[in-house]
Amino acid sequence: MARAPVRITLIDQRNHHLFQPLLYQVATASLAPSEIAWPVRHLLRRRKQITTLLATVAGIDSARRHVLLDDGGTIAYDSLVLATGARHAYFGHAEWEAYAPGLKTLEDAADIRGRILLAFELAERETDVQRRAALLTFAIVGGGPTGVELAGTIAELAHENLREDFRNIDTRRARIVLIEAGPRILPGFAEDLSRYAHAALERLGVQIELGRAVRECSSEGVAFGETRLAAKLILWAAGVRASAAADWLGAPVDQANRIKVEADLSVPGHAEIFAIGDTVSIDAWHGSSVPGIAPAAKQQGRHVAATIAKRVRGDNSPPPFRYRHAGSLATIGKRSAVVEFGWLKLRGRIAWWLWGLAHIYFLIGMRNRLAVALNWLWIYVSGNRSARLIMRDQQHP
Amino acid sequence: MARAPVRITLIDQRNHHLFQPLLYQVATASLAPSEIAWPVRHLLRRRKQITTLLATVAGIDSARRHVLLDDGGTIAYDSLVLATGARHAYFGHAEWEAYAPGLKTLEDAADIRGRILLAFELAERETDVQRRAALLTFAIVGGGPTGVELAGTIAELAHENLREDFRNIDTRRARIVLIEAGPRILPGFAEDLSRYAHAALERLGVQIELGRAVRECSSEGVAFGETRLAAKLILWAAGVRASAAADWLGAPVDQANRIKVEADLSVPGHAEIFAIGDTVSIDAWHGSSVPGIAPAAKQQGRHVAATIAKRVRGDNSPPPFRYRHAGSLATIGKRSAVVEFGWLKLRGRIAWWLWGLAHIYFLIGMRNRLAVALNWLWIYVSGNRSARLIMRDQQHP
Repeated sequence: MARAPVRITLIDQRNHHLFQPLLYQVATASLAPSEIAWPVRHLLRRRKQITTLLATVAGIDSARRHVLLDDGGTIAYDSLVLATGARHAYFGHAEWEAYAPGLKTLEDAADIRGRILLAFELAERETDVQRRAALLTFAIVGGGPTGVELAGTIAELAHENLREDFRNIDTRRARIVLIEAGPRILPGFAEDLSRYAHAALERLGVQIELGRAVRECSSEGVAFGETRLAAKLILWAAGVRASAAADWLGAPVDQANRIKVEADLSVPGHAEIFAIGDTVSIDAWHGSSVPGIAPAAKQQGRHVAATIAKRVRGDNSPPPFRYRHAGSLATIGKRSAVVEFGWLKLRGRIAWWLWGLAHIYFLIGMRNRLAVALNWLWIYVSGNRSARLIMRDQQHP
Repeated sequence: MARAPVRITLIDQRNHHLFQPLLYQVATASLAPSEIAWPVRHLLRRRKQITTLLATVAGIDSARRHVLLDDGGTIAYDSLVLATGARHAYFGHAEWEAYAPGLKTLEDAADIRGRILLAFELAERETDVQRRAALLTFAIVGGGPTGVELAGTIAELAHENLREDFRNIDTRRARIVLIEAGPRILPGFAEDLSRYAHAALERLGVQIELGRAVRECSSEGVAFGETRLAAKLILWAAGVRASAAADWLGAPVDQANRIKVEADLSVPGHAEIFAIGDTVSIDAWHGSSVPGIAPAAKQQGRHVAATIAKRVRGDNSPPPFRYRHAGSLATIGKRSAVVEFGWLKLRGRIAWWLWGLAHIYFLIGMRNRLAVALNWLWIYVSGNRSARLIMRDQQHP
């Protein structure tokens, strides 16, 4: 859209753009936040037609074509694009969130990192055997890529990296339990890759519980099926719910509050308002719903940009959006991964190298690519994770 | 002390060891926290005689030789070493702390980083001319090395690094004001080096106010001498006050609450309790007070370790502690520094290289040395600071 004669205002409630696929590595003390985040206005600095504002949107006045900010300010628009994403959802149990944090933002990641490290610190000082075992039990809810990546990395952290650092506890006895309601982990992948990942996770020492949904989360632990698992730390990677964008417009939604957009990604009844990414639902993947992953959002973004640029030129016949799936990747610890590009399925070490290269490629800027590559090399060679920090306010929540 | 037959318990309220000389670089978004901090238990993992505990000390029962923890636990000791450091002091005006944060911990640094970046974000959206000017005015109180380093780096950040990123404000018009009560900045250095640093700071665009002490800090700004300066961000680098260690023991103190220790660094009346670092006062530098800097604390630490090791062997004649001053260094922006090693005084670029090498040398571990060196190289070459993150909870304090 850079060539179109338009002025663009980008509004975000955070000052940074986040590379979410690697967020679990910040949560497990492997990467620093600044290695996977970039200040938005800095990325866009050369595009003089783009103004970046740090602000929180409270609503939309579609009649007068104004975005309403939470401090009372307004921003007028001719075209509006909503890419407000999704947060975690707890299947109607919002009260579980206090006990089972999710991983969507850098704040989530830093918080989870502190909780993981703190669990070991508290266990080191705990004299009661049962309480100590609960502190050293980590439950992860949700067997998709995020849950699998968290479980594998926490298992490596506990069983390998922290082994020598404690005197009163043996971190190799930490239990990492991955709970999935469906019949297999990585349900979005081919069955044989799921089986491979399952075995790889078990080799890392992760205990996998299938076919039982979570019934309850509390400060004591998590209940699923007939089982009550005493665990001080529960991580939620199971359900998402779209942002409030649909509520701002009274738009039609699915059960996760995602806007059911038209074929050209506009909001029904508002031809000048578009919505993209995790906050929308559209069956544009050979009849199936487009997945809530970054490549889909990027393709939708480009499509909307082209549509708006055409309109400005007077061309009002936008083609429908079609999603092209490049592939799925998930990593299991630092030695193994599964990769699926249509017919091409890879597993093990070669998949892991491909996964690493792809993720480094999609980072922004040579500096971050170098920093992350060196960080991973260091973890691989030395076995040490470099960002094991607890910020003090986490110890007395 | 590794060869002595002793068991050592290290208690800290934080899980990481911090390289404080570079803390201002985290505060100015130049380095990530994990580049200057290391998990304590990881550093000590090979020393099986050392147990590390994350805990907060609430007091000392010197009669029964117990350390009292804030959760009710106790740790028994034969010898005790207190190295509890110092916090900021506001000359009797504790209420100023809310408006003028200091820089002693990683939490301080991340908080200040967010406040600095947020000031520019808010200014970008501010329509009132006076309020915008106040947002773009940064006051630093205290002309010692910390204040000088903060002032110089914020000036570079505003005038160079952020220049292209904003549309409604010109960051080159940000005012950075350094306020020092005494007659010159860097009072601990030779006069000609102070003059050089003063000129270098002014060339960076810092306004220096000498000879006037701060009278008041508020949400509007800072008052010093006859002047009222409207500044939304005030950074405090002016006074320190020792930890509560002296209060725990009822020990004799100076005006900054530092324990006046004996010549062998023991606490008067408690031959088995030693105190070192920023929390003590001792005239062991050719009759002058030992400065509150890391090299002094390290020398004191080694002296106490040797004393305890001797005692264990039955040798009860500890020599008095003598401080050896290696030198003073302070950097002004990314091109200049002043270095003083006794008779040897350096300034400018060569001093800056020496400063850089010394600080990299004193970091712990090759990984951090490489990471910091690469980060500095990147800043130097590209002009971009890589850790410009605001964590969301800072926007709505």
